[in-house]
Amino acid sequence: MSELKIAFQGEYGAFSEMAARAYFGEGVDVLPCPHFMALFSAVEKGEASHGMVPIENSLMGSIHENYDNLLKYGLQIVGELKLRIVHNLIVNPGVKVEDIRHIYSQAPALAQCKDLIASLSQAQAVMAPDTAGAVKQLKASGARDAAAIASKQAAIDYELEILQAGVEDDHANFTRFLVVVPEGPEVIGATKTSIVFAMQNVPGALFKSLSVFALRDLNLLKIESRPLVGKPWEYSFYLDIEGHLGQESCRRAIDDLREIASFVRILGAYKQGDVVAGKVRPKRDNA
Amino acid sequence: MSELKIAFQGEYGAFSEMAARAYFGEGVDVLPCPHFMALFSAVEKGEASHGMVPIENSLMGSIHENYDNLLKYGLQIVGELKLRIVHNLIVNPGVKVEDIRHIYSQAPALAQCKDLIASLSQAQAVMAPDTAGAVKQLKASGARDAAAIASKQAAIDYELEILQAGVEDDHANFTRFLVVVPEGPEVIGATKTSIVFAMQNVPGALFKSLSVFALRDLNLLKIESRPLVGKPWEYSFYLDIEGHLGQESCRRAIDDLREIASFVRILGAYKQGDVVAGKVRPKRDNA
Repeated sequence: MSELKIAFQGEYGAFSEMAARAYFGEGVDVLPCPHFMALFSAVEKGEASHGMVPIENSLMGSIHENYDNLLKYGLQIVGELKLRIVHNLIVNPGVKVEDIRHIYSQAPALAQCKDLIASLSQAQAVMAPDTAGAVKQLKASGARDAAAIASKQAAIDYELEILQAGVEDDHANFTRFLVVVPEGPEVIGATKTSIVFAMQNVPGALFKSLSVFALRDLNLLKIESRPLVGKPWEYSFYLDIEGHLGQESCRRAIDDLREIASFVRILGAYKQGDVVAGKVRPKRDNA
Repeated sequence: MSELKIAFQGEYGAFSEMAARAYFGEGVDVLPCPHFMALFSAVEKGEASHGMVPIENSLMGSIHENYDNLLKYGLQIVGELKLRIVHNLIVNPGVKVEDIRHIYSQAPALAQCKDLIASLSQAQAVMAPDTAGAVKQLKASGARDAAAIASKQAAIDYELEILQAGVEDDHANFTRFLVVVPEGPEVIGATKTSIVFAMQNVPGALFKSLSVFALRDLNLLKIESRPLVGKPWEYSFYLDIEGHLGQESCRRAIDDLREIASFVRILGAYKQGDVVAGKVRPKRDNA
């Protein structure tokens, strides 16, 4: 596939779509996917050229399902982006704050707006599968007693009203996205390498595995553990290393790790991502 | 408070209630709480003597919200239990498998029963705030086109029918629970200590922090990282150490950690928990 088409999870107007446009440019073609497995599968099958995968939020922590998907699907990480997340309280036109009895959004978005939800004491927070999807539902139902929490883009796409902007509790709210492909050439200018590995369950195993990096003054940017299915209370570890495989120190550290680990896989090497503010595009014609 | 009253999250019949009865005995008094913060708050205020807190599932991984709650509320861990989780497909009496269009449960329970959900191709999975609550709802609605996934106890309490038992994808499905109190005497016979700490963000910081344990051959049972709110891409680390503060090696290791960490807190020392199968009790009178 020579043309760009970026798979993302959610409906049009999702933060993931904004991340795709911020990374690849405004006009890029996108493919909405109902859930994360569908996103990974679309990229694996070549229905999309790239996937835009949220992996971590600065307030909520890692999106563990996608760590598991990185291991499950054989995709390669080739890029990274950090998107500033601005939530909005969105309603059907004319609905007032005192009319709101239900607030719909994805669970992490609701958790990021606890202060707002607590202030609307007559309203109940209700989980929806995704943020922009909650806005689509709100539009379809025409509800006069409900609101959604989502991006400005979603409000534009479904022609609904923003009652209040920037409703997240903490404005230092960023989501880190990974750009994945089925297989690709080595990224030129990579500064960061992601790997996953597992160790035998012996005392000091994790310490030994980190020593191969410490020995060479290689900085670790992130460590994440996930359970090994079928082996209760054993874990795989995901590491982000400041370095790339063109560096002898990084290559040798991973070679050492292979000596002592039960498995090691390189998930990708890529340029560390910049922080960007999402930009809105005009309303989609068929939204 | 001299009497036992165990706060748990969810409705009567929740796996957490089964965990409370498995740990404290069948007849123990329990306090259902709508969400985890309400549970922690009930224990903090003395409305319950203990809290039963799910912290990790062997398939899904850590329950991060409760790692954050351990740091936020000043409670002390005094015990641990691992409960075997058996899910059931529950319906109103007489409803047949081919009638099911909606399957309600808590998100992790739905994720643990993906094979079953995929096999019911005419049905949609719908998130509910808790497993037993989904059964309560199902009973209240009398729906003939819906099912819930929950414990056998929940089916008994709401007098609904189990269409299929043991519907989890993987039977090696355990949830680890922590027993928390506002403040208590040192646990006699503790074998495990939980701490939380943060390091300056410098190369090798995590490696250095683990070295204080490796130096003394102290085994680490679990490491978990959580984002520091307001400091994007910095983390606190939760460690479970095989050892207790009565051991000089463990005490000295934590002293060393205090020297190099930006903060350290001991969350509790307790006996490593056994694996138990949940037992059902008779139907509650007021269920």
